[in-house]
Amino acid sequence: MTVSSTRPPVTRWLAERACAIQFDDLPDTAVTVARQCILDWFAVTIPGFAEPVVKILSEEILSDGAAPVASLAGSTKKTSALNAALINGAASHAIDYDDVNMAILGHPTVAILPGLLALAEQSGASQDDVLTAFVAGYDVACRTGALMSPGHYGHGFHATATVGSIGAAAACARLLGLDAAATATAYGIAVTKASGLKSMFGTMCKPMHAGMAAQNGLLSARLAAKGFTSRTDALECEQGFAATQSADFNPQDAMTEAALDHHIANNLFKYHAACYLTHGAIEAAQKIRSESSTSSNAVQSIEIRVPPVADRVCNIAKPATGLEAKFSLRLTVAMALAGRDTAAIDTYTDDLTQDLELVRLRDLAEIEFVDGLPEAKANVTITTTDSRKFTATHDAGLADSDLKRQGRKLEAKFDALVEPLLGARAPDLRDSLTVFGGGSDISKIMELSGAV
Amino acid sequence: MTVSSTRPPVTRWLAERACAIQFDDLPDTAVTVARQCILDWFAVTIPGFAEPVVKILSEEILSDGAAPVASLAGSTKKTSALNAALINGAASHAIDYDDVNMAILGHPTVAILPGLLALAEQSGASQDDVLTAFVAGYDVACRTGALMSPGHYGHGFHATATVGSIGAAAACARLLGLDAAATATAYGIAVTKASGLKSMFGTMCKPMHAGMAAQNGLLSARLAAKGFTSRTDALECEQGFAATQSADFNPQDAMTEAALDHHIANNLFKYHAACYLTHGAIEAAQKIRSESSTSSNAVQSIEIRVPPVADRVCNIAKPATGLEAKFSLRLTVAMALAGRDTAAIDTYTDDLTQDLELVRLRDLAEIEFVDGLPEAKANVTITTTDSRKFTATHDAGLADSDLKRQGRKLEAKFDALVEPLLGARAPDLRDSLTVFGGGSDISKIMELSGAV
Repeated sequence: MTVSSTRPPVTRWLAERACAIQFDDLPDTAVTVARQCILDWFAVTIPGFAEPVVKILSEEILSDGAAPVASLAGSTKKTSALNAALINGAASHAIDYDDVNMAILGHPTVAILPGLLALAEQSGASQDDVLTAFVAGYDVACRTGALMSPGHYGHGFHATATVGSIGAAAACARLLGLDAAATATAYGIAVTKASGLKSMFGTMCKPMHAGMAAQNGLLSARLAAKGFTSRTDALECEQGFAATQSADFNPQDAMTEAALDHHIANNLFKYHAACYLTHGAIEAAQKIRSESSTSSNAVQSIEIRVPPVADRVCNIAKPATGLEAKFSLRLTVAMALAGRDTAAIDTYTDDLTQDLELVRLRDLAEIEFVDGLPEAKANVTITTTDSRKFTATHDAGLADSDLKRQGRKLEAKFDALVEPLLGARAPDLRDSLTVFGGGSDISKIMELSGAV
Repeated sequence: MTVSSTRPPVTRWLAERACAIQFDDLPDTAVTVARQCILDWFAVTIPGFAEPVVKILSEEILSDGAAPVASLAGSTKKTSALNAALINGAASHAIDYDDVNMAILGHPTVAILPGLLALAEQSGASQDDVLTAFVAGYDVACRTGALMSPGHYGHGFHATATVGSIGAAAACARLLGLDAAATATAYGIAVTKASGLKSMFGTMCKPMHAGMAAQNGLLSARLAAKGFTSRTDALECEQGFAATQSADFNPQDAMTEAALDHHIANNLFKYHAACYLTHGAIEAAQKIRSESSTSSNAVQSIEIRVPPVADRVCNIAKPATGLEAKFSLRLTVAMALAGRDTAAIDTYTDDLTQDLELVRLRDLAEIEFVDGLPEAKANVTITTTDSRKFTATHDAGLADSDLKRQGRKLEAKFDALVEPLLGARAPDLRDSLTVFGGGSDISKIMELSGAV
């Protein structure tokens, strides 16, 4: 990973671009999908607050007694903006049901939004300003991801945490209205704070990574705004972010003139409460179940074909906990073939992993890692006891081209996740979020999002 | 960096060893040097508090209004323990005058002590408990450093920040009395939070790295104490700390039965207010000046021979600021040859870098990077206008074998740095620190360390 001194000035280029973005520049698609990202973030964060990881983290962090200026979604508590970024970030990734972008090979919104919301709540920024900053951060996150893909993630770094820190810094820097030099400085601070390893998947550290990214980004932008110094070429410099943490360096993918909605239009929402890289296989297995009308007893063999990246991410062969189940291709395919509800978060219990029907199917499944298959594409083939064969393929890496249909699915997901917790306030919150934008601040939204 | 699945269980081994350490186990040398590290930490932190990096960082962090339970050295302010770890850590590395250990290739005390002191102040722990935890953290930091040396630092990671996070977690976990499993978990959390790049040297991020390590370690230990989960094999696991961030993996150096004072006895204190890797060259140049009685006007050529590692650390050819001067072999050697005071922190000004006498000497200096030379060893040769040649060598990598002499030098350094700020309280603080230990808590010490 020796670095030529002639690497192009990606950091500064990204900073100049992001800090010039105005609300009126945003393509309609970007605004629509950004709103959907924000709606979906509340849908997954409010139930996430009750998860053990957030219980421990918030108990520890809130014990510092910081002044209450930023809300915790799913809770009536408030804390400092930096604390809220960390806790809300962890809460939003706790049930692992949040959105994904393949340019990052990670989760954009849980890294970018929590610090931005905390900053906006504290400063009284308008909803239009939040949308502008979110789209800017989203674009920078994806371009930074593309800059170092696939080597960064492949080598073991959890891009949600690392690349996410830069995206979060970009969003907060834009909301603060920093100039290009201070924005590039914020990226530099975020680079040296960025950390998070994929080997932590299956532990509470994984959701905390999203909170770390959000907090890193917020702190980096605020420090840069106050004159804190860092390099302004941290992405590309010798022994910088890319040089130390990625075998790949693709400035042509980071510095394209692609439109501002290019990456956000490819945002992928989750409709199963498991790791995104199980989604293709789950969808394929559901298709087989509905088209073949095969009962799970009749299944004799299962072959799952996925790209090699899935091996390190969601290949827990014999999960023992509900959390591990979400990272098990074999078990989630078993669930789909057995007709279990893969969308409901309370399906994924420790008991589920001992269910005899599922354990039988799980142990029938064989996984083949196929080089060259797109990251989220999967093929599933089953053979039945009467020697019939069924096969289906699904590419979960392609976004829904119908944004209205996508919106309806997300509203249904929101209702299913949030109504049990917020009751009558849930529709009010949903309606505020589906029209997110305009000159109002976000205080009413944050107030509605607090659980009773 | 593909990892065999048979890597030995270093993380758990280190955790078991550290959590079993009792005060009565500490060798005398370990206690003496630990006390000296603590004394020297206050000497460099109290003036560090006035540095711009700390001014910005503390203004930002203290604005959160956290309850005042932990003191900031050099200030009368208090904040939360986590905040104090970050701010005191940055302050202690701000003037870059703090101690070094070559097993880490970094700065042990500024990473390990700030979080430990904040935790001890909040919990009322005894000074003996602080000494025990500090020695445990120091030993784990050096063993972790040795595990990944030299590839980790060589690749671009600032080991003070990264390896320091594990050392800080070890110290705090020991003070909290965690068992081996929780201690190993704390190391896992610290691993996934560890970050900091060497390419940030010369910016405010470098001192902040020490604070990040201190805060990472404290938070990791406190979360592990509350049942937060992480891997317990994070140092050696597939795509873990070593696999993702070091080409080297030396379990034989991490898992030795070496005595508990082995590493701390090699602690290196700084007596020049510049980067440690300039110390050998400065000492050699001072020797030449005193032995040859050559005036700087008579110097015609200067050759500096140092190991290649210095190229990336302190080879700023034409420094323009006081901070850059500290990372310039050429300029610091010029200062030594011109008889300037390399020990006083206020020598290193922006004006200094434009001083004509120094600029002339600086531009005469040629640097040769010699493979195989120990990290802190340097040889300097000068030729005079009347063709005489003088040469001297100094190895700054060897600790002083006379601990009493070392103590006297450190007390003189403390007085020079602290008396101008604390006045009559300075001797009281110094006297409390030179006998650090026993059953008393540290409240009186922290109170004395607050600037008027």
